[in-house]
Amino acid sequence: MEIQWQKIFLPEIKELIENKDFRGLRSFLRELHPADIVDILRELDPTERVMSFRLLDKDKISEVFALFEYTEQEELLKQFTEHHTKEILTQMQPDDRTQLFDELPAHIVEKLLKLLPPEEWKEANELLNYPDNSAGRIMTPEYVDLQTDMTIGKALEHIRQTGPDRETIYICYIVDETKRLRGVTTLKNIILASTDQFIRDIMNENVIYVRTTDDQESVAQVVQKYDFLAVPVVDHEDRLVGIVTVDDILDVVQEEVTEDFQKMAGIQTIEEEYFRIGFLRCVSNRIPWLVVLVIAATISQTILRNYSGILSSAIALTYFIPMLTGSGGNTGSQSSTLIIRALATGEVKSKEWWYIIVRELKVGIALGFIMGFTAFIIAIISLGQTATSLTVGISLFTVVCVGNIVGVAIPLFFRFVRLDPAFVSAPLIATLLDATGLVIYFEIARRILTITAS
Amino acid sequence: MEIQWQKIFLPEIKELIENKDFRGLRSFLRELHPADIVDILRELDPTERVMSFRLLDKDKISEVFALFEYTEQEELLKQFTEHHTKEILTQMQPDDRTQLFDELPAHIVEKLLKLLPPEEWKEANELLNYPDNSAGRIMTPEYVDLQTDMTIGKALEHIRQTGPDRETIYICYIVDETKRLRGVTTLKNIILASTDQFIRDIMNENVIYVRTTDDQESVAQVVQKYDFLAVPVVDHEDRLVGIVTVDDILDVVQEEVTEDFQKMAGIQTIEEEYFRIGFLRCVSNRIPWLVVLVIAATISQTILRNYSGILSSAIALTYFIPMLTGSGGNTGSQSSTLIIRALATGEVKSKEWWYIIVRELKVGIALGFIMGFTAFIIAIISLGQTATSLTVGISLFTVVCVGNIVGVAIPLFFRFVRLDPAFVSAPLIATLLDATGLVIYFEIARRILTITAS
Repeated sequence: MEIQWQKIFLPEIKELIENKDFRGLRSFLRELHPADIVDILRELDPTERVMSFRLLDKDKISEVFALFEYTEQEELLKQFTEHHTKEILTQMQPDDRTQLFDELPAHIVEKLLKLLPPEEWKEANELLNYPDNSAGRIMTPEYVDLQTDMTIGKALEHIRQTGPDRETIYICYIVDETKRLRGVTTLKNIILASTDQFIRDIMNENVIYVRTTDDQESVAQVVQKYDFLAVPVVDHEDRLVGIVTVDDILDVVQEEVTEDFQKMAGIQTIEEEYFRIGFLRCVSNRIPWLVVLVIAATISQTILRNYSGILSSAIALTYFIPMLTGSGGNTGSQSSTLIIRALATGEVKSKEWWYIIVRELKVGIALGFIMGFTAFIIAIISLGQTATSLTVGISLFTVVCVGNIVGVAIPLFFRFVRLDPAFVSAPLIATLLDATGLVIYFEIARRILTITAS
Repeated sequence: MEIQWQKIFLPEIKELIENKDFRGLRSFLRELHPADIVDILRELDPTERVMSFRLLDKDKISEVFALFEYTEQEELLKQFTEHHTKEILTQMQPDDRTQLFDELPAHIVEKLLKLLPPEEWKEANELLNYPDNSAGRIMTPEYVDLQTDMTIGKALEHIRQTGPDRETIYICYIVDETKRLRGVTTLKNIILASTDQFIRDIMNENVIYVRTTDDQESVAQVVQKYDFLAVPVVDHEDRLVGIVTVDDILDVVQEEVTEDFQKMAGIQTIEEEYFRIGFLRCVSNRIPWLVVLVIAATISQTILRNYSGILSSAIALTYFIPMLTGSGGNTGSQSSTLIIRALATGEVKSKEWWYIIVRELKVGIALGFIMGFTAFIIAIISLGQTATSLTVGISLFTVVCVGNIVGVAIPLFFRFVRLDPAFVSAPLIATLLDATGLVIYFEIARRILTITAS
């Protein structure tokens, strides 16, 4: 059960604020987890929020700040003094800071960067120079590094000294004097070893790593495959420059999934939470595909006009257009969803395309047969015309087969030309299949109706 | 970059097998990560696979075995001797074992359970008694437990002794003599503390936990919210019975997401990887919704028949049917995707339904205006008939507004009656909107065409 802490604590907090019992509020907040504090602060009005925020302990303040959405962070920053801003930014984890800078307008980032001490400024600048959505952008340079010739005792001492600042101390990386990655070990191995052993005795030399320029999605795949708590990131000269931890990977996975969901519904990526999306942004990110598809539907319209002869002579054909185009679209969106998801999780590779096509052809035939037969029965019951019913049944069968193949073929093609398969939205498939389905329908109708008429 | 180890190592492995160099193979496999061994074994033929499998080190064998899909595990088990099976099952992590038993047929599980030593047998049975997809099913009872009055030195000694078997030693739970959860601390805190401090000095008493019966999805939400490496699981008497670790949460997230994708495409949940889904299972899990939607399309057909008078007098109306029904469906699947995802990640709660409806009404009006206007222009260019074009434009506007609201209303309603909103598939929305759209279209057409005719 996710407990709604903010609902339980909010009245108490409100009371403390009303009574101006800042000491009480401060010790109350001290007991809470940063993630819960964020939930509570969100429920307060802006002045109360900034006030409570300032009461937080120094070591907690940057942690809480990092957990807000960047739009909220921007709002908060506006209300802080320069001194306060400087303090928070300096104390923030480098990866959280990069994420904030990532989203803020360039002129604000420039101002904020100037507030940082030289060391931090250099680091922040370097991180911001890595490509968007790359390992470099989500990594933190705060890892524990050890040397091969350290004894376990020495290593533990080193961890005790540097540990408090590090993102994780559970995975330790062994580097040589040129910062090249030589091995990896865990705190578990170190704890279980005897103090006179050397790090080289317990380290694993086959280190699995990612590069700064690797996409965050492939970093997530590595962490998931190997059940890592962290993965090391090396630069183009094989030097260890940072690590990505599993908690950030969970965020990456959720972000990528939301993006895929949106793309598959024909929406341009919206990163904000639902209620934080501005009205205009919501409209502008949804409208492009919708309009494109309205225009694309002109193809269906043209097809229908071309067949208006058959249409007016057999108006009953019209009745089944929604069933026919709908079924094509439904089947296509099923098969495209299966394949897009399988490509995203790495279950299938695009070079296996031939097996996939053959497989979906077989499945399509089975689905088409069942659906076509159902449609035929429906048509014969409601219309009683064998020729039209036969046309409906056979057309539905064909459209479903085609739809099923198109549904996998387009995502595979997208992957092949290095576009994201998730861009193949259900709306796109449906619109394509509307047009295809109509041509199939009328061509079959023309043949069957001619035969039965003669 | 995910490196394709299996492609690099496969030829070498094949050669070692061919030369019957088992010693070489054994030491080769020793160097590899279990996840990579799985990838390599998958590429071998069945006899080679079982043979290489048996060469694995004892401590690695159950780990590698656990990483296979359960269908593959079943295959492998068939080829093992009873002794071998017993060894692997006894050494497997309890949570991995539960997952395997979960999927195997009952009579096989019964046989396998009998192979376990009494202690393990009891544990496995208990875990299997928790509800499907609950925290109890995915947890492991192998955590590190400490007592409040232990010194840091004593605690470290305890960790050194019990650690090797534990799923994680990085998060330690403090329990009293009745096994009730009293606090939590991390190995980091322990390492950084001085050896004469007591555990109670460094533990956090505000432990965030889940219950055995909680759904795995809400467990995932807790781990994500608090960036936990593990979350403790307590039974109905508040006793600590296990932990769920973050690596299992990553799997849960992926599994739940795949499920949502499938539901939203109108597919009954398929848990296997794409290529491991049997043909019949693939068809049978996809066909129900497809057939339901074919039957549901009968409504559209009936509507079209009812309006066949208008249809035959203004055949041009037919041309725009795909554009109209398509746009309604597209808009509806966009808004339903946004809301389903926001509900799944907990960004919005269903009690905020009124804000959501108002918001989507506004967005729908904006989208509808732009799309309706586009459609009007297209119609006037291609047809030149003002009345029909006006009908198309106004209808499209109305259908888009309705579609946008329906897209959020149904998922919200589903959540309200405690069904999974993800069951609201794009196909379902599209089919519903086909019928609604047609009624709107012809009602508007009848009015406009009557006015312009008089």
